[in-house]
Formats: sequence, structure tokens, C-alpha cells
Amino acid sequence: MSNQKIVTIGGGAGSFMVLSGLKKRPVDLTAVVSMSDDSGSTGILRDELGVLPPGDVRQCLVALSQSSQVLRDLFNYRYASGGLSGHSFGNIFLSTLEKVTGGLDLAISEAGRILRIKGRVLPVTLGNTRLVATLKDGREIIGEGKIYANAADLSKLKKLSLRPAVSVNPEIIEAIKQADKIIINPGDLYVSLIPNFLVQGLSQAIAKAQAKVIYVGNLMTKPGQTDGYSLVDYLLEIEKYLGQGIIDYAIYNKERPSDQLLKKYARQGETVVLPGDFSKLRGIKLLSYNLLSHKVSHAKKSDNLANFRSLIRHDSDKLAEVIYKL
Amino acid sequence: MSNQKIVTIGGGAGSFMVLSGLKKRPVDLTAVVSMSDDSGSTGILRDELGVLPPGDVRQCLVALSQSSQVLRDLFNYRYASGGLSGHSFGNIFLSTLEKVTGGLDLAISEAGRILRIKGRVLPVTLGNTRLVATLKDGREIIGEGKIYANAADLSKLKKLSLRPAVSVNPEIIEAIKQADKIIINPGDLYVSLIPNFLVQGLSQAIAKAQAKVIYVGNLMTKPGQTDGYSLVDYLLEIEKYLGQGIIDYAIYNKERPSDQLLKKYARQGETVVLPGDFSKLRGIKLLSYNLLSHKVSHAKKSDNLANFRSLIRHDSDKLAEVIYKL
Repeated sequence: MSNQKIVTIGGGAGSFMVLSGLKKRPVDLTAVVSMSDDSGSTGILRDELGVLPPGDVRQCLVALSQSSQVLRDLFNYRYASGGLSGHSFGNIFLSTLEKVTGGLDLAISEAGRILRIKGRVLPVTLGNTRLVATLKDGREIIGEGKIYANAADLSKLKKLSLRPAVSVNPEIIEAIKQADKIIINPGDLYVSLIPNFLVQGLSQAIAKAQAKVIYVGNLMTKPGQTDGYSLVDYLLEIEKYLGQGIIDYAIYNKERPSDQLLKKYARQGETVVLPGDFSKLRGIKLLSYNLLSHKVSHAKKSDNLANFRSLIRHDSDKLAEVIYKL
Repeated sequence: MSNQKIVTIGGGAGSFMVLSGLKKRPVDLTAVVSMSDDSGSTGILRDELGVLPPGDVRQCLVALSQSSQVLRDLFNYRYASGGLSGHSFGNIFLSTLEKVTGGLDLAISEAGRILRIKGRVLPVTLGNTRLVATLKDGREIIGEGKIYANAADLSKLKKLSLRPAVSVNPEIIEAIKQADKIIINPGDLYVSLIPNFLVQGLSQAIAKAQAKVIYVGNLMTKPGQTDGYSLVDYLLEIEKYLGQGIIDYAIYNKERPSDQLLKKYARQGETVVLPGDFSKLRGIKLLSYNLLSHKVSHAKKSDNLANFRSLIRHDSDKLAEVIYKL
């Protein structure tokens, strides 16, 4: 039997988790990555070097890497002081390779060889674009970084768009056509996930695909962005941009985190994503499993947020098993 | 017949030239690199990340690389704008790998694998040290960058030293013991070459070696540093630090550059290094050849100095032939 062909769609952190588990299975992986990030290290490199956003691509490359731990640590290394402060080495690496090769796609190929990745990473578009949030009062917030920083305004969101409009990376069309499964990864709904579906041609390609389309639900809500959202609310928002009747399955974690952890998260305004009223949706099957990770976090002390965040998270191996067997 | 075992000793640019030619021959190469640079991109990384100087190591790695042109271009890529301005990507790469691995020697091994180098690159010391110029009036100039910037004072030089004192990288002792030939590369006499011989244990190892010790003379003098120096003057200065009776051969270019080029250089205060009075030296054989490069320079327009400098330079293949056949 030939390998399952799986296409994943998402941003950085959620894709990292999904891909880390799936790469251990006999699958052909294609990671489609959103390309509208302009915050932090990625934003500085875009502005200063005139390159496409490297951050989410880097996370997918590291997830798929079969190279030494040293190289993976190198790519994720973040400078704490001096002129490089805040940058991740992998971002600098990809952006410089893009300058040298003349294209992010060529840079990814070269970086993929060095990192010996299993599968491939495809930017959702090779166009240079920014995310725009149009609010109900007509105001616009331009740029993912600014949208993220003004998350409270998303309660007044009318629509998201990309400016300029950009077309899907043609290689993705072919990958989707041949896919057995298309995974919509967990992650920040408005700034990581939906920006993929704003790229012209992606939703149409998914709609035509033979593949099973599977959404993996977030574990926790995001303060200011998805407060009180149920799994159904997430799905309804995604369908606004992807279209209705396309998603076949929604994978949901039914395992309850400890009260202690929930309290910690509640202090940051994050609550468990509940299933919600599935009668609002047509044709999406809800699949629930125990998917929480119980591994001890190895996040560095210096990286407090990551340490904290990592406490309620998916077990990438359990999730991969569910996806693989589906 | 087994490969010739060749050890080269030098700084960045001169070692790059010598190694670029030698790597095409059936030789086992060990490049010993000076470690007291603290100027430019290298100096910033030393200060901000607390690492050893990467710049000269990078040039040797690129010279020995058998990887794609893309990777070699990547390592030499220099940022022209933004927060990374002035840095070379290869320097950032090596310094970050040193942070991740915990040692420059480990970083060089990993980088050498990625660049698929032929041979190896050994920092002359793994100690963290600075070059100190003590002048005849007792003043001290501390740091290679400052010494370079105050080159005029070198006419009043009493002695060079390293602070703190550091010991030779032990791997070098073994390489020198087994070497058939030891090449002392051309390059800046006081800030690139002699700093190697200030490291405790290197000169003694060379003195004991069975190998032929061969000095490759500079083509042109360096304004403020070696004005009017003959080949013999260079050799006498090197012998002050290396010891007498150790160098067996001096390779000298006897080919005269065009008058037009010589005029250009004269405007910068650079003149041809003449052989000088060899009766001042004992036991060093002078070998003269036509060694000038007549290849068209491919230096980038943006890099005017490199373009200019590259006009009177060694042909690395001709030099490698001389060294190999000696």
C-alpha cells in the first residue's frame, strides 16, 4: 500500500504540533503555511530585507526535520541581547537564503536539504501581502502584528482580507488534488488560520478535492479574539472563508485538563473550547478523543510564555494516530 | 602514494586564496586560523554574544567547501541595511552554532558538514583573547580593530602579545607533527599572521616538525603597517615571533603588475614587495615564480574596495601548483 498523502494547512505553532506527530507515520506530507505574518522577528526581516515572512515556514521545517538535534536547536535559537535581539536564527537563515537564491521557494528547498526534512513545506502564496481587518465601523487595521496587538477590536470585525490580493502557490493545487486527507491545523483563528483561505484559489481547490477534509479544534480560546467560542463557532468562522459543506470531520479533545491548570489559564482569560451546538452545522462529523499531552514541558526557563502555554496542549502522537487511522 | 599532508597558517583573506587552490589537489588540508580578530561584524558578535571570532574561520570554511555555490554565497552574504547591516551571514551562523553547541570547535564541525568541506579548519586557540600592541613609548593599543585603525603607530611598535595568554589548540600539535608541508599564508603581517605565533605552543610545535616550512610572501605592502617592507623584512618580523632557522622556503612573485595598476595602488600607498637582501637571512631558500592572477574580477559592484583590491592578487591555482610540487 502506498503512503497516505496528507496536506496540512495552518500557521506556525499549530502546524508544528500536527507535523511533529504525522512525520513518524508512513505518510507523504505537504505543509501549507500562511504568509501574512508581519510581527516580531519576521516583521523586522520583511521590512529590512524585503523578504517574505519566514517564521511559520521555519516552524514547519523544524517539525519535519530528521537532522541532528543541534541543527533543530540552531533553527529555533532566539537571541536574547544585542542587535540580533528578538530574532530567531532560522528566520535570519531563511530570509538570507531568499536574498541569495532570489525566492522563498528556492530558499525552502535548500533549507529543507540541510534540515533533511520529510515531506515538503509550501508557502500558501509567493505573493507579498498583508492581512487587513475591516471593522463594522469601517475602520481598517492593516498588518497581522497590529491586528494581534488590537485583538479587542476583533469583536467588531466585519471581514478579513489580504492586500494586495494574491494567488495560491500553484504547487499546492496539485498536492491538494492528489491528497487523501487535508488537515486544517489548530492555531490562532484570525491571524494564522483564516489568512490561508483568503488566498485566491485555495478554497476552490479544497472544495474540488477528493480528500477527507479534517479540522483539528483548538484546546483553549484566545483572549480578545475568540472569547467564549465553541468548536462550532470556530467552524462557522472558517466556513465563512472556506465555504460550506467542505469540512468532513472535526477532531475534538474531550479530556478535561486539571482544575489547577484551568485556573492558571482562566487568569489569562483562556477557557476550554466546548463543542457547542452541532445542529448549526451541516455534514460535519464530530470525533472526540482524549488528546491532551501529559509530557513534562522542556521549554526553557527564559521562555516563560512558552513554558506556561505548553501546559495545556495536544499530544502530537495521539493526534497523529487519530488522523492516520481516520 | 598517500596524500600530501599540508597545514596552512594564517588569517582570513590570505588563507582563503591559498586553500582555494590547494583543495583541488590530492592533499589532506588543515587550516590553522588566527583568533584575535575583534573588528567589524566579528567584533560585534564577540561583544554581544560572548563568542570567539568567527570571521577568519568562515573564510577558510568557504574556501574548503565543496557544496553548492548557493551555500557558499549564503555564507559570504553581507547585509547592506537594517539591524543586520555590516554582518556577514556566515559569521552569524558560526556564532549562533557556537552558542547552541557550546564550543566553536563543535560549531566548525557542524558547519563543515553542511558546507561539505575538504579538510578541516582549526582555530589556533580555543581561548578568548585580544591582540595587544605595546609601543616603544610604553603605550598599549588593545584589540585588533583598534590596532588596525591606528596603524600609523605600528612604526613605533615594540612588541605584540595576546591578553590573556592562551595555549594552542591541541589538535594542531598532532596535525603539525604529521605534516609534510607547513604553509605560512600571505596576509596582514601584524594583525592576521603574527597573532598565530603569539599563541603558546605553536612556534615550538613548528620548530620540532619534520615538515618543510614555506612562507608565501605578500604581493603588496600595507600602508601604515609594512610601508617599504621587502620580503626579507617580512621574514625577519615573522622570525621574531616564530624563531630563527625554522622557515625553509619563501615563495615570491617575480611577475610585475602593469604600470597602470601599480599607479592605482600607489595612490593608496601600496607598493610592490621587493625581495630585499637575502644575506640577512640564514637557511631560507628564495623561490620566485610568476604568480599573478589574470582572471577578471567578479567582485560585486557594491564592494568597491574588494573590486579594487582584487586587481593585484595571487593566482591560487598557480600558487597551489608550486606548493604541491615543492
